[in-house]
Parts: sequence; structure tokens; C-alpha cells
Amino acid sequence: MSELFEQLKPHLERAYAFQTALRAISWDNSTLAPREAIENTSKAIGILSGEEYKAQVNDEVKGLLKELEAPGEQEKLNDSERALVRKMGKGLRKLEKIPAEEYQAYSELLAKSYPVWEQAKNNNDYASFAPVLQEVISSQKRFRRYQQEEGQTLYDVALDEYEEGFTVEILDDFFGKLRTALVPLIKQIREKQELVQDGFLNQNYPIEKQKELCRFLAEYIGFDFNRGVMAESEHPFTTNFHNHDVRITNHFHEDRLDFACFSVIHEGGHALYEQGIDDGITMTPIGEGTSMGMHESQSRFYENNLGRSRAFWMPIYHKVQELFPEQLGGVGLEEFYRAINKSAPSLIRTEADELTYPFHVMIRYEIEKMIFQGEVSVEELPAVWNRKYQEYLGVSPDSDTNGILQDMHWSGGSFGYFPSYALGSAIAAQICHHIKQVMPLEEYLEAKNLAAVREYLKEHIHKYGGARNTQELLLAMTGEAFNPDYYIAYLTEKYTELYQL
Amino acid sequence: MSELFEQLKPHLERAYAFQTALRAISWDNSTLAPREAIENTSKAIGILSGEEYKAQVNDEVKGLLKELEAPGEQEKLNDSERALVRKMGKGLRKLEKIPAEEYQAYSELLAKSYPVWEQAKNNNDYASFAPVLQEVISSQKRFRRYQQEEGQTLYDVALDEYEEGFTVEILDDFFGKLRTALVPLIKQIREKQELVQDGFLNQNYPIEKQKELCRFLAEYIGFDFNRGVMAESEHPFTTNFHNHDVRITNHFHEDRLDFACFSVIHEGGHALYEQGIDDGITMTPIGEGTSMGMHESQSRFYENNLGRSRAFWMPIYHKVQELFPEQLGGVGLEEFYRAINKSAPSLIRTEADELTYPFHVMIRYEIEKMIFQGEVSVEELPAVWNRKYQEYLGVSPDSDTNGILQDMHWSGGSFGYFPSYALGSAIAAQICHHIKQVMPLEEYLEAKNLAAVREYLKEHIHKYGGARNTQELLLAMTGEAFNPDYYIAYLTEKYTELYQL
Repeated sequence: MSELFEQLKPHLERAYAFQTALRAISWDNSTLAPREAIENTSKAIGILSGEEYKAQVNDEVKGLLKELEAPGEQEKLNDSERALVRKMGKGLRKLEKIPAEEYQAYSELLAKSYPVWEQAKNNNDYASFAPVLQEVISSQKRFRRYQQEEGQTLYDVALDEYEEGFTVEILDDFFGKLRTALVPLIKQIREKQELVQDGFLNQNYPIEKQKELCRFLAEYIGFDFNRGVMAESEHPFTTNFHNHDVRITNHFHEDRLDFACFSVIHEGGHALYEQGIDDGITMTPIGEGTSMGMHESQSRFYENNLGRSRAFWMPIYHKVQELFPEQLGGVGLEEFYRAINKSAPSLIRTEADELTYPFHVMIRYEIEKMIFQGEVSVEELPAVWNRKYQEYLGVSPDSDTNGILQDMHWSGGSFGYFPSYALGSAIAAQICHHIKQVMPLEEYLEAKNLAAVREYLKEHIHKYGGARNTQELLLAMTGEAFNPDYYIAYLTEKYTELYQL
Repeated sequence: MSELFEQLKPHLERAYAFQTALRAISWDNSTLAPREAIENTSKAIGILSGEEYKAQVNDEVKGLLKELEAPGEQEKLNDSERALVRKMGKGLRKLEKIPAEEYQAYSELLAKSYPVWEQAKNNNDYASFAPVLQEVISSQKRFRRYQQEEGQTLYDVALDEYEEGFTVEILDDFFGKLRTALVPLIKQIREKQELVQDGFLNQNYPIEKQKELCRFLAEYIGFDFNRGVMAESEHPFTTNFHNHDVRITNHFHEDRLDFACFSVIHEGGHALYEQGIDDGITMTPIGEGTSMGMHESQSRFYENNLGRSRAFWMPIYHKVQELFPEQLGGVGLEEFYRAINKSAPSLIRTEADELTYPFHVMIRYEIEKMIFQGEVSVEELPAVWNRKYQEYLGVSPDSDTNGILQDMHWSGGSFGYFPSYALGSAIAAQICHHIKQVMPLEEYLEAKNLAAVREYLKEHIHKYGGARNTQELLLAMTGEAFNPDYYIAYLTEKYTELYQL
């Protein structure tokens, strides 16, 4: 046992308590709080955020971490403790390189940039957002320059923030392969749109019945309601207080069935990750999913690799029909399967189908890379955006609202974050391929046995939380580092069959 | 403007932020959190409670308050600031008199005494609770001795904690008058039970319909849903984050209509108090209801003085009938009015009717007084309890579970708190009498005009929050300090008429 580590614990516990407070308030704001509450409540949020920051970033913690990183001390730590020290040490070192007053100014900039973006999006007025975006980009590039290490491009530094070890080199290869293999596929499908019809998903589906179905689906995939909660919010999301309190939300549309169904399976995948974290590390800095990409891999695995497969619905589709006899009584399983997999290029990332989805991400990636390499001005961004949509997806945004302004991430300085969305799907395909090697997945699904795959994921991914990064987890589980080939093979095979190409 | 007061503000804001966090988590625990969450979450609660305490009780705050209490500084403060300094100063001085290590030991004692009480209540096993109760009582008496000032009895010190300025002398007078006037009345009513029938309230009342009615009632009395939320919990309660976020809960019984209806009116009364707090003082130590007794006066005023009157239901009873045509279609308004006012002695305080309620409180008051005067041992308490129930209400508890163990308060060290429950009703009656002098209350109720009385209460009580205490508020509003005669007159008149005595 390390005495130094014991000294670190009270700091971690305080930081955790403030984080819990912030998540509780944030959850409440998104699901329940009355309309006029936020202005007052945000004062408490501001103070608690400051306290959370100070509990983790202070001279005492810095000193302890430095000592704990010494080889003699490392020997006294167990695996989780070493991982925690490593993660916190890395984070602090990156943060330290940014002068405190610049960071403060940046925080204030972000506080004001969100409403500017929101209004610009509502008014389809990119020009009003451009100056703030320019400031955010300048700060981001300056900060990444402070943090840049030998051999890293500037954008690599940003990428590493969200997915450790994933560089421009890896992502160029990933997206390059996607482009080569899938752009032609998407073009072919465009000409065979009539082969897949999903009109029957657009009937009236009473919300109470949808809720019943979603509750069933959550339980079916193994979401533990003794350690979790389901609620409603404007946009579906998952949040976690600790491994015994994980929450998902949904949003219901009376005129569309599949949105809510796949949202609950998607968020359920995130939630299973968090419910599967080991008791020994929950409520610590390594007590949640290791990265955004790995998290997204779990949600996408459940949503797409399982949830959009024939085998998943085979044993339960009759239940859906029983809930909606008028709407789906005459629709067979195969028809349903085809409808929930319909692919058609569209403008909005969050509404995209499984096949075209990664292109929305790729476009954002290519543009972010250009920004960090100084190859494009803020003024030129909408034109570049629209050109790329035409090139890859064959569609042109009718407005910046439905184009470059659609996502809030840039207003929050989240550059380098988007690629994780596509990485998640690719990791999911790699995991799925591996799982099929070690168990008869389709047979299990057809037999309603979802426990086997859930336990396997828990054992090889979930329980470790942030103690291992994506590459380490993949390598240990599948014997191979990240490999996008499985993703391309999966999409190609699935959509070739679906559209008879 | 006082520079010293400006220095105090950041401390107040931090304390407020932690308080908000704790209330958000506590609200969540009571309404939504999954079953297995609490063990982990309680670690965060413990830390946040400690932080809240430290933010208010520290040398810097103590020093500032001492300086702010000096006459020269007092001049620089406005009314609210002076009230805040006075309230915090008083609280700190009382706390300071208790040695820190004793307070710490006491906190630990309380943490363990609650589950002991809970188990004792479940097992009807007073003997297992007695030793812990003895420890709590000893600590309480020791602390009150530390805080005792000249002219105060020991129990006075405890009473002052919950209702400033209310002493044994005042309460002896209050309860003495109640006893003299109402014990005979209760006896008379026992012999005329058949005059009021409420069996029709015990039919099947579908919960969805009850919810609809409760939502209507909340809106009807003026609960502002833009600044408030309604949810469900095991026991109904009200909580407030600030004056723009006030929350009430309810609990529904399918086989009983009036519980939920009067709960929502009761909690709604608490909520109107908090929604009526002035913007300038919300989120400060004087930013909520001034005391437990005054708070209870607002809830009881709405629940009983308004909610159990004929005039209240006259314009809306048809709505109740429309919601429950089978159950109430044949029940007239007068019959309904009589049923919701039925009086019958019972064992459980929280289920008592308006007339017998204060006797449950009086019994607790008399016993607490005996405890503080050293006139009864912990072992003797159940016997004393049972004797008093027989004497005042003519009923004998069939178990300690339904007797002395029914309430949790003593396990939390809340001695001196109970009287506020009865004071609330008495204050409500005094306020009601006054309001009838300044406006035609019954006419207003019959005309669905609840805004007039709500605005009046806001203007004379609510907006001040904790800036004025109960006696100050009553004196300024009614021209008279607390006077229990109105309460006795109100109950006597109402029940004499109801039971044709």
C-alpha cells in the first residue's frame, strides 16, 4: 500500500462529490427542472464547477502525482492505482502547459460562444458565429501548440485528448479506406432506393405504447433498473453517477416508431458499459468508460450490430406486432428488418443511417484537419462543407442551419472529438467480428440469450473502466489493435445484400 | 454599501451552491434514484455536507460576522443584510458553544441512530431503540446547557432553535387553552360519530384521474409550474432550490381520494411561500421561509382554512364529480364537505384530522418538556405516551410502532421541533381571522378568486423570507403577536356546527 496514494484519495473523493453534484443538477435540468429555474441554478453550477476543478488541479495534487510517478512509488501501486496516476498525471501536465489566465479567458469565451452559435443556427446566420468561432479556433490552436510534443502534428494533440494514441496517420488511413470502399456503394444505393420501403414506420404510434416497447427493449438487452433510471429529455443521452446509478433518456415522436426504439438500444449500450464498471474503481477518475470512441462502440454495437440485425428481432418482433397490431400486423419481419436498415444520404448527422453516418464524421474530420493545418479560413468553411457533402453524399445543404451550423461541438471548443463517432462504429464492427469467433452470436440472439455477449463485454471491456485505453483493450480482447477493415467488410456485406448490388 | 458584507458574499454563495447540490441529490433520491444507488451516492452526500458546513462555519466568516455586528457597520447595511447578519451570527454563536469534538461525536451518533429507530419501529421493539435514544437525549441536554442563557429553561433553548422567541411559557399557555377547550369537544364528537360519513371516499379512484385532479388543484391555488415541479415520492414533501424552482411531491392511494387532494393543497401552501420569496434574497441564508411554524401555517392555511371550507369547493366540486362520476355523481357538495372534515381520534399523527391533530403534538410537547426537566426516564416513555393518548384522545396504542416509535424526529435529535406543527395551525387560524377582516374571503373563494389572498400573503409574509421572524410578521400584518384564541374559536365553531353540538 502506498501512503502517498492514501494522501491523494481525499482529493479524489472531493472531486468526485462535486462531479456527482454537477451531474445530478445537469440531469435534473435536462429531464425535469421548471422553465424559469436555470438562471438562478446556473450560479450554483458555476461555483460547483470551480470547486471540482480546484479539487483536482492544485499544488498538493500535482506534488503527490509527481511523487507517485517515480519508479519506487509505482511498485507500491496496484494496476488500477497506476492507471489512475498515469491518467491524472497526463491530464494535469497537459493542462499545466496552458497559462492559467489564458485558460480563464478561454472559459469565458466558451460561456458566451454557445448562445451565439445557438442563435446563429436558429437564424441561419453563419456570419454572426464566424468571429466567435475564429476566436475559439485561435485559442484551440494556441493551446495545442503549447502541448505539442515531438512527432505530433497540431491536430494529433487535439485528437489525443479524446482518443489516446489515435493520430492523423491512423485516421487518414481509416477514412481513406472508408471513402474508397463506401462512396461507390452509396452511389449505387442511391439508384436503388425503391428496393427498401420504410413508410409504415411513419404511422401513428401512440407514445404510451412506444414507452412500453422501449422499457421492454431496455430490460431485454440487460439494462438493470435496480441500478438505473429511464426518463425523457429533448435529446436522448446517458449519464452516470456511479456503477449503481446509470441513467438513460429518450425522446418520443408519435409519428415515427424506430427513433425511440433505437435510441433506447443505443443509450442502453452506453449504460451497460457504465453498469459494468468494477466496484473497486467506480467513483474514481478511472471509474467510467475509457474514451468517447470506446463508449460509442458499445452504444453502436447494441444499436447497429445487434439491434439492426435479423437475429435480434426474430424472437421479439411478434411483441412489437402485438403492441401495434394495426400498424404492423401486416408487416413481416423481413420487411421490418429492411425498413430499419434503409440507407439514404441526408444532411443531418444525428439522423443519418448506419452506412452514410461515417461520412458526416469524415467531412468534419477533414475540415478540422484543414483548420489545424491552416489551409482554410473561417469564412470559407460553409463553402467547403457544402462541397464535401455534394462530393461524398451527393446532397447539398439547403442552409447553414442544416449544414455547418448543425452541431454545437465547435462552439464548445471540441475539436478532435468528432472522429470518435466514426471510430465507435468501426470498433463495434471489430468487436462484433471477434465475438462471432468466440461464441455463436446469431444463435444466441435467436434464443434470446443476450447475457452471454453482455458478460463477455463486461469481462473484456466494461469492468476496466478507464484503467486501459482503447488500443490496450482491443489488443487484449481480440489479439489485434484497431483495424478498420472489419467495419468496411461489415457495411459492404450488409448493404450489398440489402440492396442486391 | 458595506465592504465587509461584500467579503461575506462569496462564502454565502459557496454555501448556497453546496446546499443546492445536496437538495438536488436528496430530491432525486426521494423521487427517482434507483434502488441500489444510495450506498455509493451517500459518500458524495457526506462530503458535500461537510463542505456546506465549512463554507458557513469558519474563522473568516466568524470574524466578518463579528465585525458586521458592530453598530458602525450595521448602519451601512440594508434591512435584509442586517437580518442576514443577525441570523447567521446567532446561529454561529449557538454552534460555537458546543465543543467541536462533541459535535462530531454527536453527528456520528445521529448517523447510526436513524437505522436503529427504523428497525425498532419495524419490529415494534422500543427496548432496542432506548439506549440510543438515551445517548441522543443526553447530548441534546448537554448542548442546550452550553447554549442556555439567563432566564431560559433548558427546553426553551431547544424550542428557540425552531421557532425564535417561543418559550415554554408561551407553549404552556397555548396547549393549556387547547386542552381546556377541545378535550371536551373531542369527547362529545366521539358520541356522535354517525353524524359524518366518509365511506364514499374509500372507493376505487383511478390514480391517473387523481393525478389530473391534483394538477388542477395545484394550478387552482396558484402553484406556478414555470417555477415549480410536481413528482411522486413515498411521503409528500416540498423542497426548494430557490424562488424559481420549488418542488412538491405527492403519494397516491387507489382506494382513497382525499389523501392526495389535501396533500397537494398542503404542499402547495408550502410551495407558494417559497415561490413568493423576494428575488433579492433568494439563494441567501434568509432566502426561504422564516421558520418551521410559519411554513406550516401556510400549508395548513391552504389545506384546512381554505381547502376544508365549503366556499373553496363550491365553484369546483362539479369538476371532481366529472372526473369521478361513478364514485361521486350521487354525492352532494354538503356531503363531500362533511366527509373531508370528519373527526375521529386516531393513533397516527400524520393521519389525524384537523381537530385531533394538535393533541398528537401536545403529547409530544409534554413528554419532551418532561425529558428536559428530568422528570421521566427513557424506559418510562412508552407508558407515559400511552397514558396520555388515553387521557386526551380516548385511544390506546396497540403497539409502540403505532405509538412512541411512529415518528423519526427523535432519532435525528429534533427535540423542540414538534410544537411547530401545532403552532402552524394556530398561526393559520390567526392569519385567516385577519384576512377575513381585510377582504371578503368567502366571496372570493366562491368566485374562484384565489389570487387576492395569495398576493396578500406574499406581500405580508412570503416575500420577507427569513428576514423577519414569526412574531414580527404577525405583529406587522395583524397588529397582534401570536394569539392562540383564534385557533380555538375556529375549531370550536367549525366542529360545533358540523356535529350539531
